[in-house]
Amino acid sequence: MLADTLARTADRADTARRLLASARVPDSPAMPVDRVPGWLAEQARRGQFQVTPVPFAQLRGWAFDEVSGDLRHESGRFFAVEGLHVHADALPSRGWKQPIIVQPEVGLLGIVAREIDGVLHFLMQAKMEPGNINMLQLSPTVQATRSNFTGVHKGRGIPFLDLFLERGRARVLVDVLQSEQADWFLAKRNRNMIVEIDEDIETGEDFRWLTFGQLLRLLLLDNVVNMDTRSILACLPTAGAGCADPADPVLRSFHDPDAPALNSAAEIHSWLTGIRALSELNQRRVPLKEVAEDGWLFGDKEIGHDSGRRFKVIGADISASNREVAAWAQPLIQPQVPGLMALIVKRINGALHALVQARVDVGHLNVAELAPTVHCRPADHTGPGTEPYPPFLADVLAAPGDRLRYDAVQSEEGGRFYHAENRYTIVEVPDAFCEDVPEDYAWLTFAQLTELLAHSNYLNVELRTLVVCAHTLY
Amino acid sequence: MLADTLARTADRADTARRLLASARVPDSPAMPVDRVPGWLAEQARRGQFQVTPVPFAQLRGWAFDEVSGDLRHESGRFFAVEGLHVHADALPSRGWKQPIIVQPEVGLLGIVAREIDGVLHFLMQAKMEPGNINMLQLSPTVQATRSNFTGVHKGRGIPFLDLFLERGRARVLVDVLQSEQADWFLAKRNRNMIVEIDEDIETGEDFRWLTFGQLLRLLLLDNVVNMDTRSILACLPTAGAGCADPADPVLRSFHDPDAPALNSAAEIHSWLTGIRALSELNQRRVPLKEVAEDGWLFGDKEIGHDSGRRFKVIGADISASNREVAAWAQPLIQPQVPGLMALIVKRINGALHALVQARVDVGHLNVAELAPTVHCRPADHTGPGTEPYPPFLADVLAAPGDRLRYDAVQSEEGGRFYHAENRYTIVEVPDAFCEDVPEDYAWLTFAQLTELLAHSNYLNVELRTLVVCAHTLY
Repeated sequence: MLADTLARTADRADTARRLLASARVPDSPAMPVDRVPGWLAEQARRGQFQVTPVPFAQLRGWAFDEVSGDLRHESGRFFAVEGLHVHADALPSRGWKQPIIVQPEVGLLGIVAREIDGVLHFLMQAKMEPGNINMLQLSPTVQATRSNFTGVHKGRGIPFLDLFLERGRARVLVDVLQSEQADWFLAKRNRNMIVEIDEDIETGEDFRWLTFGQLLRLLLLDNVVNMDTRSILACLPTAGAGCADPADPVLRSFHDPDAPALNSAAEIHSWLTGIRALSELNQRRVPLKEVAEDGWLFGDKEIGHDSGRRFKVIGADISASNREVAAWAQPLIQPQVPGLMALIVKRINGALHALVQARVDVGHLNVAELAPTVHCRPADHTGPGTEPYPPFLADVLAAPGDRLRYDAVQSEEGGRFYHAENRYTIVEVPDAFCEDVPEDYAWLTFAQLTELLAHSNYLNVELRTLVVCAHTLY
Repeated sequence: MLADTLARTADRADTARRLLASARVPDSPAMPVDRVPGWLAEQARRGQFQVTPVPFAQLRGWAFDEVSGDLRHESGRFFAVEGLHVHADALPSRGWKQPIIVQPEVGLLGIVAREIDGVLHFLMQAKMEPGNINMLQLSPTVQATRSNFTGVHKGRGIPFLDLFLERGRARVLVDVLQSEQADWFLAKRNRNMIVEIDEDIETGEDFRWLTFGQLLRLLLLDNVVNMDTRSILACLPTAGAGCADPADPVLRSFHDPDAPALNSAAEIHSWLTGIRALSELNQRRVPLKEVAEDGWLFGDKEIGHDSGRRFKVIGADISASNREVAAWAQPLIQPQVPGLMALIVKRINGALHALVQARVDVGHLNVAELAPTVHCRPADHTGPGTEPYPPFLADVLAAPGDRLRYDAVQSEEGGRFYHAENRYTIVEVPDAFCEDVPEDYAWLTFAQLTELLAHSNYLNVELRTLVVCAHTLY
């Protein structure tokens, strides 16, 4: 590390204060919130995007390996669909084999920030992804795999990438590797970054500056703010912002590092360490063709499970006028049923606490990560032959409407997942709700969660979405 | 997490203060340091240990898999020697295949602590491991794989294990998963724990209570304090102990969280995130027989590399009178030449700073971990056909004797490695030493290092040894 990197990162408490100030600016003349959906629709029209499902045999550039059956790109880069053989406590002793996306390279998800009239604004992009609901969603300034920026896909240059990769071009507010969907990806991480610049930069029609308050209003809408944006914003520090209204349990939870948390940071670390140490998770990459042993069927157009549950692998042909390349083909993962990601929150000692679970998932890098209270596909738990309800699902489904503090449908990353929608909800439970929970669940304040987000692989991507959505509660 | 876990973890600053107080007690009438080597020798005599190299065909309970060639135990547990195919920036594009130990289960390395006359003491065990130099070394109170404590090896009960695993039996001072040798293990971690009890417990002839000051004196000797002990003790918090002598750059570096560090914590995180994101490390477990493609030779008694460098896999038959099982056989890894682990330290702004590298290694879970300034086998860099010197090796080898602030030979874990000795040294460089270093190197204070040790996979096991050895400098 060279000396000229000194003072390139911002002070976390200062960032937290400026984030809170930006949250309190619900609109901005530069780009009123009401005009965002129309602008996204206009960009969609201009882009002339088309996504057409095609049989695997017509997936240009992609082929099943003759020996292993793995679905790979001819360049050997981007990603591959392989098989994963997992042994875990919850599975039969012979384990379980399933398709999995293997993408060892780390991508960059980056947002450029700038103070406009003293208020922090974020540069958002109207970006098309093939699996997106609405085709375009509000995306980070830069969203690139390493294959993108090392030029394997022969695409055009990526705007603003240099602000993230070149030393000393901008001040770093967030810079951390975070995990993505562990039931579809093997140990996938992306680099989540926010960098701040002091001077205005030239942007195109597909970019807009928005305050955090505006982004929070857009998070109340279904399928407008994309997963990568949600993930990055969740990583912003909040502790130490100071709390103008100490009587507000939400503000205290996010901003007051001295809020009386039910469990100390050391306690939470020890609890999670114990679960990671004592849970079994043994993962081995195997040839994709072996997943047939566990009920996966290979068709011309899709790989799916004979139960009709889980997910399908499909192929799509894509054309777009304003992507780095104008046309391409790729596999996509399509879930069979939507998920429910619910966070139970409760006022404890004057600060809102979130009930999270330490969840072991097939693709995890580090055995267990913190996940929403309920992280499931409800359809997997209703009807004959299905699994029993997971803990707290009944509480969430039975919650009266006035207890739903947040409730919207958001979709997962459209670059890999096709119309993968989940309902995200935050349910505030009454004082009578029991604080004694099963041993793989714990109550944390939001400041504790955002402090953990300074490090990799503590919060899964679904919980990160709920952390940023919880900012809408104050 | 249940409410009765509240207040079970100690405050980190309080632990740091008590650790410093214990460091200042260089001897104790309960067990004078001078008597430790004799006690270890006596325990060795009583144990009647024998370690005999045997051909793989005579390795009871172990066999090469007929299809893959993997070397496994008949129970399917403990560990296996498999093949690893790695792609990384430093390797040829076709990658590199080598034998690797796969041991997905997390073991427990635990030390029981107690205040005696107001001073923190640690309960150390004289424990035999088949690969140990001197057969017995000073080991943690408990050192157990999950196979041990779930009874797969049909061994006797493990003393004191309940203090670590049963809720509320003791106060937790340290509890974190840490990595082990990444050139021999695939993503191996162990749970490093220290728990404190308030009342005396009954211990046998093979246990002794020692102060931290006594352990530091023993760390000055070769091959007395085992790797697991060094790893656990390194994880003790030091920041916030307060500093009686603010003029001492070593004390400031360890104990003063406000010491003027050259790089902020956020800066260090961003630097390491960048290296993890931009370095390639693609690991795939392959059948052990495939490593023959890269020059590994399979003999009756050993698997070794045709260069005569790297390491060998051997088999050993072991008998002991006081281990959980009286006789067993197992494979061991035997390095061909000793390593050099050197930490360059320098006084910067009145606080000692350590120069660490972000090192990418074949078995890493998380691409890169912080490693000693020099982490190599010097014999790999001398003579015809060898690699050039790595950065700073020449500085370390040329350092005059009065610059060597610490210098001893320590061995790596004797449960998996046979006579794996490394020279550990700390070299203090003069003010003229340039602070501009290559981009994968950085200067950190010791408080910054011990704060990172609250989390997994930041410091490799060799750097953890040097962190605890650096306590001998004040």
